[in-house]
Amino acid sequence: MSERIPDKVVARLVLYRRILAPLAEQGFERLYSHQLADLAQGTAAQVRRDLMTVATAGSPARGYEVRALLRGLAAMLDAPDPQPVALIGIGNLGRALLSFFAARQDRLRVTAAFDVDPAKAKRTLHGCPCHLLEEMPALVAKQGIRVAILAVPAAEAQGVADLLVGAGVTGILNFAPAPIRVPDHAYVEPIDLALALEKVAFFARRERA
Amino acid sequence: MSERIPDKVVARLVLYRRILAPLAEQGFERLYSHQLADLAQGTAAQVRRDLMTVATAGSPARGYEVRALLRGLAAMLDAPDPQPVALIGIGNLGRALLSFFAARQDRLRVTAAFDVDPAKAKRTLHGCPCHLLEEMPALVAKQGIRVAILAVPAAEAQGVADLLVGAGVTGILNFAPAPIRVPDHAYVEPIDLALALEKVAFFARRERA
Repeated sequence: MSERIPDKVVARLVLYRRILAPLAEQGFERLYSHQLADLAQGTAAQVRRDLMTVATAGSPARGYEVRALLRGLAAMLDAPDPQPVALIGIGNLGRALLSFFAARQDRLRVTAAFDVDPAKAKRTLHGCPCHLLEEMPALVAKQGIRVAILAVPAAEAQGVADLLVGAGVTGILNFAPAPIRVPDHAYVEPIDLALALEKVAFFARRERA
Repeated sequence: MSERIPDKVVARLVLYRRILAPLAEQGFERLYSHQLADLAQGTAAQVRRDLMTVATAGSPARGYEVRALLRGLAAMLDAPDPQPVALIGIGNLGRALLSFFAARQDRLRVTAAFDVDPAKAKRTLHGCPCHLLEEMPALVAKQGIRVAILAVPAAEAQGVADLLVGAGVTGILNFAPAPIRVPDHAYVEPIDLALALEKVAFFARRERA
């Protein structure tokens, strides 16, 4: 992490790893840049350029060694220790996300969930302790949480995002159907599930070229 | 839908509607292009250009009439009738998505879910009938389904996508952690939840400019 890799390259490195991991499990040992490019829907030149940021080198004749590449990607992308994640909003979407992420054996673990509603807090859901939102700043600080999943209604999204950033969170995965703003030192990735489905439905209806 | 609106414009129109709907509910009557641009994180010029594709016109002095704009957007974006949606893969993620989309009162309804596993099919979940995957082509044809949500494991994604397109589906919201290819007349929107969280976690760790 000494050199600053552009955000778009990081996004592609994450994707490459996602593609390579099952291949390694299936016993693939070597892969050429054009094959990875094909799977990632990019170009071979871009793959080679991106992977120059990772320690391991490929050769034009023999391609990349898949396991070495995965080790290089892990060294670059993963935190040295498992990273705790907070989830805010234990409504319908929040519970669905908790169920999804809790089932994954992952270096990213949702270790605390929060809601303003006492009926939704003060219990354990999918193995994750649920708390009142007012306890969030103290727990985020105590657990050293830097990553949050935001699943609150649109009207509350910005206010909760401000609270999160104030508590030390520097990365937010925003499922609230509203754009949020954060200071420059923090990062937001928006995912609007309903909007995505609407978009697909529109394109599904119209004749395509 | 007579003129072909570029995909990116459609995506923004969907976003504008998402922003405008709660404003209308809160009683906002008029809005200027620069205000909408601010909420959508775009520019006023782009908003005005995009909204020229919608019937209603704004005026520089008075801005846009919010309800008229919403009607224009609905006329452009919505199907005349509610649109049925199929969900494939009733595992952990599929169930979470079904729970999320079923709770929405929407013109898009998940009317049929499918899985290869008999233990997951042959029941009703969140009000949605679940069937064996082999029944999919017949049911998709019968219900006139053009939109599908794909929540199967990576290794099965392309095969199921091929089946869906063969059955008449022309839009796929792909949650499988693998890129899929479809013919030119169909559309795929990929959402990889775990990958998105990984990306956020990476950016959360590193110092930002």
